[in-house]
Amino acid sequence: MYNVAMKYYSYENFKNDTKILIDKVRDSNFEAIVAVARGGLTLSHAISESLEIRQVQSIRTELYDKSKKRENITIFGACEFKNIKRVLVVDDISDSGDTLSAVMNSLNEEFKDIEFKSATLFYKKTSIYEPDFWINEAEGWIDFFWERDFLK
Amino acid sequence: MYNVAMKYYSYENFKNDTKILIDKVRDSNFEAIVAVARGGLTLSHAISESLEIRQVQSIRTELYDKSKKRENITIFGACEFKNIKRVLVVDDISDSGDTLSAVMNSLNEEFKDIEFKSATLFYKKTSIYEPDFWINEAEGWIDFFWERDFLK
Repeated sequence: MYNVAMKYYSYENFKNDTKILIDKVRDSNFEAIVAVARGGLTLSHAISESLEIRQVQSIRTELYDKSKKRENITIFGACEFKNIKRVLVVDDISDSGDTLSAVMNSLNEEFKDIEFKSATLFYKKTSIYEPDFWINEAEGWIDFFWERDFLK
Repeated sequence: MYNVAMKYYSYENFKNDTKILIDKVRDSNFEAIVAVARGGLTLSHAISESLEIRQVQSIRTELYDKSKKRENITIFGACEFKNIKRVLVVDDISDSGDTLSAVMNSLNEEFKDIEFKSATLFYKKTSIYEPDFWINEAEGWIDFFWERDFLK
């Protein structure tokens, strides 16, 4: 539980949580991963190596008008799945939930024969979307190591 | 220099090297990143956050017949660039060089108006392709933290 206003989330925290998340998704036998860029890239890499999932793709979203962002999410990056039935969609956090909600709706709409599940490290109770798998409840802002450790 | 037969490459090693790599590419003002999955995912995430490059896409390669792998690399994942002139292609290592060579040729062929440069953490002198930016020379096998830290 990370209930402070601003929490630095270190690689060590990430390593511990990601191993727990991997244990949660292991039995579902996902055949491919869709990483939501940028937040889901490092997590997707870790999960895919651990579970030996070679097919990792990424998509990217943009909010065009933040004042009415729920209406304005655009998804970039076409996914392609060949003989794939179960796909894990990976992001770092379901914050407002707008991004993951839009992504899952879009994927489910486009690929009706594929089962998509979602996984994140953090979930906010105020999110409009609850991932199928998540580890920590977040109230404040998470300062992920990938956002801080590589600054000049 | 990592000249041993098998070297564990920790997150701390990665953090230090990636900051050096970021300093090398900073002045080129790349507007987008293409991550070569899976090896380049974590590195792409770090570079993109540090340099505030929001447009990160990924591609994936497969070797169909390892006995003649130089002839059989297939690239999956269509890239799209809008008003982009300078793109950084990111992978963890240029080992044989087959993957990066094929990826760079393919991107240069498809997007003739875009300048593509490549960056890796490791480069082997025996590689057929030398990245534009690289940090360490590798002789043996690198055991990247993302390949080991999340195993059961």
